[in-house]
Amino acid sequence: MNPAAGRAGRPTLAVVGATGAVGTVLLGILSEHADIWGEIRLIASPRSAGRKLAVRGEQVEVVALTEDAFDGVHLAVFDVPDEVSARWAPVAVGKGAVVIDNSGAFRMDPDVPLVVPEVNPHAARVRPRGIIANPNCTTLSMIVAIGALHAAFGLSELVVSSYQAVSGAGQAGIDALREQHARVAGTDLGTQPGDVRRAVGDTGPFPAPVALNVVPFAGSLTEDGWSSEELKVRNESRKILGLPHLKVSATCVRVPVVTTHSLAVHARFENEVTVAGAHEILAAAPGVVLCDDPAAGEYPTPADVVGTDPTWVGRVRRSLDDPCALELFVCGDNLRKGAALNAVQIAEAVAAELPS
Amino acid sequence: MNPAAGRAGRPTLAVVGATGAVGTVLLGILSEHADIWGEIRLIASPRSAGRKLAVRGEQVEVVALTEDAFDGVHLAVFDVPDEVSARWAPVAVGKGAVVIDNSGAFRMDPDVPLVVPEVNPHAARVRPRGIIANPNCTTLSMIVAIGALHAAFGLSELVVSSYQAVSGAGQAGIDALREQHARVAGTDLGTQPGDVRRAVGDTGPFPAPVALNVVPFAGSLTEDGWSSEELKVRNESRKILGLPHLKVSATCVRVPVVTTHSLAVHARFENEVTVAGAHEILAAAPGVVLCDDPAAGEYPTPADVVGTDPTWVGRVRRSLDDPCALELFVCGDNLRKGAALNAVQIAEAVAAELPS
Ligand SMILES: NC(=O)c1ccc[n+]([C@@H]2O[C@H](COP(=O)([O-])OP(=O)(O)OC[C@H]3O[C@@H](n4cnc5c(N)ncnc54)[C@H](OP(=O)(O)O)[C@@H]3O)[C@@H](O)[C@H]2O)c1
Ligand SMILES: NC(=O)c1ccc[n+]([C@@H]2O[C@H](COP(=O)([O-])OP(=O)(O)OC[C@H]3O[C@@H](n4cnc5c(N)ncnc54)[C@H](OP(=O)(O)O)[C@@H]3O)[C@@H](O)[C@H]2O)c1
Repeated sequence: MNPAAGRAGRPTLAVVGATGAVGTVLLGILSEHADIWGEIRLIASPRSAGRKLAVRGEQVEVVALTEDAFDGVHLAVFDVPDEVSARWAPVAVGKGAVVIDNSGAFRMDPDVPLVVPEVNPHAARVRPRGIIANPNCTTLSMIVAIGALHAAFGLSELVVSSYQAVSGAGQAGIDALREQHARVAGTDLGTQPGDVRRAVGDTGPFPAPVALNVVPFAGSLTEDGWSSEELKVRNESRKILGLPHLKVSATCVRVPVVTTHSLAVHARFENEVTVAGAHEILAAAPGVVLCDDPAAGEYPTPADVVGTDPTWVGRVRRSLDDPCALELFVCGDNLRKGAALNAVQIAEAVAAELPS
Repeated sequence: MNPAAGRAGRPTLAVVGATGAVGTVLLGILSEHADIWGEIRLIASPRSAGRKLAVRGEQVEVVALTEDAFDGVHLAVFDVPDEVSARWAPVAVGKGAVVIDNSGAFRMDPDVPLVVPEVNPHAARVRPRGIIANPNCTTLSMIVAIGALHAAFGLSELVVSSYQAVSGAGQAGIDALREQHARVAGTDLGTQPGDVRRAVGDTGPFPAPVALNVVPFAGSLTEDGWSSEELKVRNESRKILGLPHLKVSATCVRVPVVTTHSLAVHARFENEVTVAGAHEILAAAPGVVLCDDPAAGEYPTPADVVGTDPTWVGRVRRSLDDPCALELFVCGDNLRKGAALNAVQIAEAVAAELPS
């Protein structure tokens, strides 16, 4: 039987950046989810045109990004660098598609909603530019849990330190960690100043070695010493939660983990909180798994969370000096909920309301 | 010439736990520093008795820990597990030695000063039990910098997330990371739930794999979900700074780094702060290196800091929503300033005031 036969009349989905780290995971998620799509068109740079990738169990040929590539497309998910999205998302909209963009190009545009389906699903309906933005992976890895706690207790402040995986820098980040590991494993490096740096040599997309090290800088430098990644956590958290004056301080740090971002979060609320109350909210929150029994060794770690969909929360403690503040440790797969899964969730919700 | 000839009349120093991770670094530091000691006696468990270790360029035989081992000892630095210190430090005091203890056994005893020479040197003079405690390595890796800022601006609150090296768990921690790395390097692990855990098998002294992972738990479980390590940061910071009501929230996380602890610190002060003001204080503070020019790629990382003495501080930012708060990223070698160096500094100060 030709699977295409049953797909007549269903919306056409374009995946722009299908060959990248996020795109690859997105094709996997489309293959696992209920098949609501007509054609799924795979788009990347001319370098990849003609390559075949598997989606829904079928081999599909990648086409180059051109205006014509959006002919007949209802929805387009963009998983490409900022400047490629900035140029091509409006082209896709001009051809009649709704765009869901994973890059940073449109997130803070007041005419572009920034959507996390578990937190602000209705925002997706108001999209004056025809574009819906997907938050950055660091914010996404914590915001479902924080959103649930905010709804219950009223959030007033976040102090966040991240433990970010190398795949947040795309496939080049994964390749760099693997190459660096090959150079340091089986040695006694890591005990003399600079020994790891000398052994690693080229640090790839990172500003310092990431094997046997942590790097307290992600993204680019903005004003007053803040990294772009740190400001994204502040600005995007405020926009998603609808709290334009939320106090947010973030320090973003890269760690030698392949995939899954972790965050240590100090969250202050308008109201008093208890661990039991927070547990109750988190256990009931869609898209959250509460994993908090340290006596039994239960807390989330990236190695356990990678490849899963939800936001995992553990180490919930009430601050000893502030009855309104909680400490949490949160893990989320930066390629799934942090990027591809959130985009697919939005795409499925938009598809459900398209005129058929 | 016999080097012992010139040493007559100088104090005898005992190093208890000379064979361990901290002891090994301590012998190196004694060999680099000005030689103010008479005999240096090396003590460890009966397992190590008879082994020879190098100190001051000489081979010295390790003796087993017994009461007689403290005959004629003026100062004894203990680098052994808590329970060994708890039992044997009073024995050494009974034999006339001043004890400097690196374990957690005495730190919160009101009759034992907890000393960081750059912060509270005078506390070392009042030691009713004859014991001076050395803070834990996580607190020590940040407190010199925090102490300098406190003296200038008046500290009111700390929110701290740690990135702790495996050698904080002693030689067993180093061995565990090296074995785990050998199992995961050259593979494509880290992309499927549990794949790293299965490859690593035995996790050694850690409650989860530490290769390609971060582990949000260090030490043992105390009440209300806090780890012992997190409470040490709170209690010891308060005691060292003489601020019994300081607000402190810490989340302690182990990372795949051999040596050098890092901390992301959110520090709130009584007074308004500026980055320029903080830079000035930190640049002038003894034992601190300011390394803060992110445009030039300058911020501390463990791979660069390991093997050095000072506390390195970078990524200094003023909180965007609070003119009284600073964000910092701090690195300190947990075996040097975090343990052995601080103990040697105290020992040298005590030796200078001994009656000769
Ligand atoms: N990685 C994450 O955790 C994460 C999370 C959230 C958001 N994001 C964002 O998602 C986007 C993709 O990230 P990634 O990590 O998947 O990056 P990646 O692995 O580097 O992949 C980049 C993708 O963009 C395509 N591309 C690059 N230049 C292009 C051009 N000029 N025309 C057409 N296609 C082009 C590439 O196609 P070729 O293979 O043909 O070069 C590839 O498919 C970025 O904006 C990133 O910031 C990433
Ligand atoms: N690692 C750090 O970053 C750090 C920092 C600050 C403080 N500390 C504290 O410093 C102490 C030592 O830590 P470490 O990391 O060096 O540990 P380690 O590598 O496990 O070394 C332990 C040392 O204690 C000796 N020892 C153990 N049991 C003994 C016994 N019954 N009698 C006599 N000696 C005994 C061992 O001698 P054998 O070799 O003969 O067994 C060895 O010399 C601990 O209290 C630790 O909490 C560690």
